[in-house]
Amino acid sequence: MTETPDLAGLQRRLADFAAARDWGQYHTPKNLVTALGVEAAELAEIFQWLTPEQSARVMDDEGAAHRVRDEVADVLAYLLQFCAVLGVDPLAALSDKIDRNEGRFPVT
Amino acid sequence: MTETPDLAGLQRRLADFAAARDWGQYHTPKNLVTALGVEAAELAEIFQWLTPEQSARVMDDEGAAHRVRDEVADVLAYLLQFCAVLGVDPLAALSDKIDRNEGRFPVT
Amino acid sequence: MTETPDLAGLQRRLADFAAARDWGQYHTPKNLVTALGVEAAELAEIFQWLTPEQSARVMDDEGAAHRVRDEVADVLAYLLQFCAVLGVDPLAALSDKIDRNEGRFPVT
Amino acid sequence: MTETPDLAGLQRRLADFAAARDWGQYHTPKNLVTALGVEAAELAEIFQWLTPEQSARVMDDEGAAHRVRDEVADVLAYLLQFCAVLGVDPLAALSDKIDRNEGRFPVT
Repeated sequence: MTETPDLAGLQRRLADFAAARDWGQYHTPKNLVTALGVEAAELAEIFQWLTPEQSARVMDDEGAAHRVRDEVADVLAYLLQFCAVLGVDPLAALSDKIDRNEGRFPVT
Repeated sequence: MTETPDLAGLQRRLADFAAARDWGQYHTPKNLVTALGVEAAELAEIFQWLTPEQSARVMDDEGAAHRVRDEVADVLAYLLQFCAVLGVDPLAALSDKIDRNEGRFPVT
Repeated sequence: MTETPDLAGLQRRLADFAAARDWGQYHTPKNLVTALGVEAAELAEIFQWLTPEQSARVMDDEGAAHRVRDEVADVLAYLLQFCAVLGVDPLAALSDKIDRNEGRFPVT
Repeated sequence: MTETPDLAGLQRRLADFAAARDWGQYHTPKNLVTALGVEAAELAEIFQWLTPEQSARVMDDEGAAHRVRDEVADVLAYLLQFCAVLGVDPLAALSDKIDRNEGRFPVT
């Protein structure tokens, strides 16, 4: 829709989408985190019988590439909705985590 | 660190972090998607014995809130690294998916 | 087939089934454990939007009951095949674990 | 403990263990399937950065071998408890599934 969607804009679209369909009643944190895990597994399923080398070339096949983008979208959608219902800022959480990891895993 | 981290900036920090530690050799798409699923499960573990009502109040406990933010960060980190190695734009993928879902699930 | 299938007999049928189709090449421990996680997620998907009360009545619906039995079979199939390729005895492993847990979680 | 534990005997030990600790209240099908997925992910975690070749030798390391047996036990424990609360016979379910798969994937 917009030229360059940003995370906050997508989060709003997801909230509007769910509200318009009265799906908020299903969106407990527990249900959303289950759905996140299901979508992560659907993404993993694309790779389950591939060698590491085949997995690196998965986007060469248009059908597989479409599935990958589709499942990435689903994982991100449930992650953002989970964060929205709990008031978690995923970008700040990741930034803080990288800060901590720089201390935990010093470059030698 | 930065005031308002954005997704692209975090993706660059993650790539620099892995490169400085020579972790790129482990970051096949197949390994990264496995790690994504492991982190999604660690997030789910926080909720596994909670009722829906308890799950909605999980951020009231500071220890649990910290774990939630920490696991959200891990899920997002592996999702972004997975997308980076395969050249997938997660925001565009999600925007396209919402467009398609608006057709699949019309508001009645 | 047999009246009372036992675990060892099912493990043999699974091994014969895979051998007859030359699937052994795909059955690395890493691939089998990924497949196990995918099937566990497909089982979880049946329950993802259900309340605890609805989840307890899932077998009342014949379609859902069939899906549950089908996914239970898939989870068990990959668990048994994973154990077979690594020489793990799942019944002994569980028996040992229950022994240890009786020490870890004494009845008060 | 017993010389040759069987699945039904282990299922009874698990039920007694949970009953003695009043854990039955937590053992909804939905919670048990979430726990199953968490344990499957903990098993996958052992393999996440390994090559296929390394994954095939995982039992050579005693520490890793212990973790593998421990997580196999946890996966089986939650699968059996899930089946018990829903009245599913996992061995019959798998036997039926192999029968169906023999029709779906004929040997050529």
